[in-house]
Amino acid sequence: MVGETKVKIKVELKEGITDPEGLNIKKSLNLLGFDNVSGVKSSKMFEITIKEADKEKARTEAENMCKKLLANPIIHSYEIIL
Amino acid sequence: MVGETKVKIKVELKEGITDPEGLNIKKSLNLLGFDNVSGVKSSKMFEITIKEADKEKARTEAENMCKKLLANPIIHSYEIIL
Repeated sequence: MVGETKVKIKVELKEGITDPEGLNIKKSLNLLGFDNVSGVKSSKMFEITIKEADKEKARTEAENMCKKLLANPIIHSYEIIL
Repeated sequence: MVGETKVKIKVELKEGITDPEGLNIKKSLNLLGFDNVSGVKSSKMFEITIKEADKEKARTEAENMCKKLLANPIIHSYEIIL
């Protein structure tokens, strides 16, 4: 039997990189009356199912996926959650 | 002193709603040689800073933000993480 591993990858903007989506959501929330919202940070999550029972191998694969496709190293940082 | 609460909100597509971003990422990963990726689900995360020390009040506010702006109840489900 072949096992599967579900890996969560969170891709967010690095500290210091402007987050226009977050800024706009903050503005909109304030305009809607949520006056006590002082900051919004947006990020993306990907839940990836890998046909690989070995969790450490799955993590290495997820790392490579981030490097090759999911994250732009200039502006993004990523976190792999098993 | 006024306290702050950081609330994380995860907005994802409901079960059964097509996730074109996830499907395209899966296809791209397969094309890049990650043959053992069998599924990708995408979602959005928002980290919201609320000037409110009471966690339960902050949760209620976050719930209202989802209803008013962050999620479309027809296609999205959301999760509030304190």
